[in-house]
Amino acid sequence: MKVTVWNEFFEERTYPSVSSVYPDGLHTVLRQALIEHLDPGAEVRVALQEEPGHGLGPEVLDDTDVLLWWSHLKDDEVVDEVVERVRRRVLDGMGLLILHSAIGSKIAKALLGTSGAMTGWRHGDSELLWTVLPGHEIVAGVPNPVVIPSGEMYGEPLDIPAPDELVFISSYEGGEVLRSGCGWHRGRGRVFFFAPGHEEAPIYFQPEIRRILANAVRWAAPSAQPQPKSTRSGEYPKNWWVQA
Amino acid sequence: MKVTVWNEFFEERTYPSVSSVYPDGLHTVLRQALIEHLDPGAEVRVALQEEPGHGLGPEVLDDTDVLLWWSHLKDDEVVDEVVERVRRRVLDGMGLLILHSAIGSKIAKALLGTSGAMTGWRHGDSELLWTVLPGHEIVAGVPNPVVIPSGEMYGEPLDIPAPDELVFISSYEGGEVLRSGCGWHRGRGRVFFFAPGHEEAPIYFQPEIRRILANAVRWAAPSAQPQPKSTRSGEYPKNWWVQA
Amino acid sequence: MKVTVWNEFFEERTYPSVSSVYPDGLHTVLRQALIEHLDPGAEVRVALQEEPGHGLGPEVLDDTDVLLWWSHLKDDEVVDEVVERVRRRVLDGMGLLILHSAIGSKIAKALLGTSGAMTGWRHGDSELLWTVLPGHEIVAGVPNPVVIPSGEMYGEPLDIPAPDELVFISSYEGGEVLRSGCGWHRGRGRVFFFAPGHEEAPIYFQPEIRRILANAVRWAAPSAQPQPKSTRSGEYPKNWWVQA
Amino acid sequence: MKVTVWNEFFEERTYPSVSSVYPDGLHTVLRQALIEHLDPGAEVRVALQEEPGHGLGPEVLDDTDVLLWWSHLKDDEVVDEVVERVRRRVLDGMGLLILHSAIGSKIAKALLGTSGAMTGWRHGDSELLWTVLPGHEIVAGVPNPVVIPSGEMYGEPLDIPAPDELVFISSYEGGEVLRSGCGWHRGRGRVFFFAPGHEEAPIYFQPEIRRILANAVRWAAPSAQPQPKSTRSGEYPKNWWVQA
Repeated sequence: MKVTVWNEFFEERTYPSVSSVYPDGLHTVLRQALIEHLDPGAEVRVALQEEPGHGLGPEVLDDTDVLLWWSHLKDDEVVDEVVERVRRRVLDGMGLLILHSAIGSKIAKALLGTSGAMTGWRHGDSELLWTVLPGHEIVAGVPNPVVIPSGEMYGEPLDIPAPDELVFISSYEGGEVLRSGCGWHRGRGRVFFFAPGHEEAPIYFQPEIRRILANAVRWAAPSAQPQPKSTRSGEYPKNWWVQA
Repeated sequence: MKVTVWNEFFEERTYPSVSSVYPDGLHTVLRQALIEHLDPGAEVRVALQEEPGHGLGPEVLDDTDVLLWWSHLKDDEVVDEVVERVRRRVLDGMGLLILHSAIGSKIAKALLGTSGAMTGWRHGDSELLWTVLPGHEIVAGVPNPVVIPSGEMYGEPLDIPAPDELVFISSYEGGEVLRSGCGWHRGRGRVFFFAPGHEEAPIYFQPEIRRILANAVRWAAPSAQPQPKSTRSGEYPKNWWVQA
Repeated sequence: MKVTVWNEFFEERTYPSVSSVYPDGLHTVLRQALIEHLDPGAEVRVALQEEPGHGLGPEVLDDTDVLLWWSHLKDDEVVDEVVERVRRRVLDGMGLLILHSAIGSKIAKALLGTSGAMTGWRHGDSELLWTVLPGHEIVAGVPNPVVIPSGEMYGEPLDIPAPDELVFISSYEGGEVLRSGCGWHRGRGRVFFFAPGHEEAPIYFQPEIRRILANAVRWAAPSAQPQPKSTRSGEYPKNWWVQA
Repeated sequence: MKVTVWNEFFEERTYPSVSSVYPDGLHTVLRQALIEHLDPGAEVRVALQEEPGHGLGPEVLDDTDVLLWWSHLKDDEVVDEVVERVRRRVLDGMGLLILHSAIGSKIAKALLGTSGAMTGWRHGDSELLWTVLPGHEIVAGVPNPVVIPSGEMYGEPLDIPAPDELVFISSYEGGEVLRSGCGWHRGRGRVFFFAPGHEEAPIYFQPEIRRILANAVRWAAPSAQPQPKSTRSGEYPKNWWVQA
């Protein structure tokens, strides 16, 4: 399995409240979490917004099974060509994890069709992450609930499509709720939105969260043996299949 | 529109904590709520568990567009024949509102296939009822959130099928969440589970709750003009429809 | 109810095979179908791609409850600003009917996130339109199946999100199938894709098809009484709702 | 992985049209198909309706990860106690494959809530099995379409809940369609209905069908590491999680 962790890597170098938690960038911690949990053969690479082509050239995407995407304040600077390349690659089978504020990113909007806007937000809330689909592979080995001591509240209605698979619902200290773990199929690919991940809190260091991320990567990864491309439809005469 | 409100009507005559809130029975208050909100032509009748055939003979069910069902401690005394009659009537087009504890009733299990078991429960919690599907007819005119000062917590995972339409998610004072407004299609009929309705609190007197109940009745009601029964399938020769 | 029928109106003035069927444009026939079936108070207007702003200025969209969209060969000439305006208006509550080839249009892609690409297509097939959700309002009064003597085959997999409400599945003379009537919620609005509508065949003159279109308009229309905007989330202190 | 293939094993010993195709029973062929495709460590056992307790005592079910169920004419003789035992085991995490006519079985009804009734049926039709969810693990390595030379038509509407995951749609020689590969979550378990499997045709000998069955078993199997049981909900004081 080949995984690429993409990060805008801006706040970690700009705001003390973020750099104190993630001095080497969110991507470094996310990468380490996946290495810990995935099979030893997994390759976990990093790509950053600052790299040429945002580090997501065709050769990188074509060699990626699952892409993690963390973006926030600089998402409007992501060039549309890269967004479109990622979108096409997902439709062709790559998995995508949309992390935290990236629900409002260009790539999330392009694949989901919605704005990703939440009704409100607030920093510093504790959060309980509740499982609602207990047989799903993403909750394997994950306690219910997961307690996140401090994070960020996003309030419903959150403008997303109804999930094909609603895995987690969160509650926040202020009483708000969120569909915080949501899976969708898009083309041959899979998309998972995971809400926890506020950059001022050490959420990606929590063992339960790391396990969820790795489970989600496995869920989103394409099958080793894809479906052969259909060659028939529209290429054969009418009634070819009707017995004489 | 013809609506029947069914009630087990036990606790209101047994426990002071309930009779003090609903001295004439939950059904009386539910009926009044619907009369207030539905069109003047709507007929809202009552059927009680203590009546012969639980008040749900074929002539009643055949003349009912939407049935509301409130049951709790005496549900195991509902006879299976009536459960099966209601189930068939739903599959044939009648709407059904499953209220509060009735998520664990025989009729709910029979139509949903799950146990309706919640992970935990607790009396006396305040509850916030959040809208997650803001374009749905059941939330028309309903504020977000609805505040319920005191009710009963049901915790996730709640053993229900993934809703076809997830309309509300609740949070409780203890931090738990619940998919508290859930719609499903079953056969030609529709089923809506609405969690608020603890019998020791005046929840069905709240104006927002009454509006939701009436909206749900309208959503669950069958179309005035049903689909004609199919007469063709399996009754015509192979390839009848293929042009020469 | 205010309905706007939008048409690219190109093939009807270009190809004899189309003008012979729809000499006054597809939009004229669609409009007439809706006038026949909707309540007398309904206003059904027309907007064309050739008009300034494609006939979809803010004042038109803000005054439209449901928009029908038929496009095909000229869709790449629809300006992105109009696409974005329509998208936002749907998220804000307007209904949208995506007709036939418009599943590959910019607006369909923008709202669904997928490419709309089908696996194959072929002209001239007869089609059977089967109901799979018999209690849905869109099939009210519609026989099962509807027989379309000649149309266009689109083959699965069709690249669309799994429908929130799958209403129709079609089979074609060549044995292919299609999810041909699909509903989605997007924001406060609703989207319905209806596949039949090949421009060289008089499909929109068929009584059953006209009834389906009118039913779909009613389904997609926003509630008369929308949900009040939430004012609370994120604006109140922590624990405001927790009882002392 | 431990798999149990359950068969009513009646027609294979009663009707020449069936025994000529499956002289050793459908279960023998199904078992062989799974052994071919699953990992070498998989155990595939057989249980028959004629055995005591229908071969499905608690010790068998507790030791089964996925159960395949083929029943038809004798399903009404399956005792309710066994149905309830299987139902509970699915809710507790066991996978279940509902094969062909078993969509009308007691266990299918008990888990899905619907009747499983189809609008019509007809023997001898050829069938095309089309993929509509191309990134799903059940279609890994499976061509689109799969051609079944002769089988049995089931017509829509088929009375089932809307699938959580609609994988296959079939068309038949007579022009009918069917949602023929449908996945649902129920409790901690998963259910997959696979329509092909008419007993008078060698469908379970087809390589593509055998691959699908094995893929479906893998999809339905519970995670190796289940979610720990929640211990908290309802057992802690109000506001335990709210920061001071």
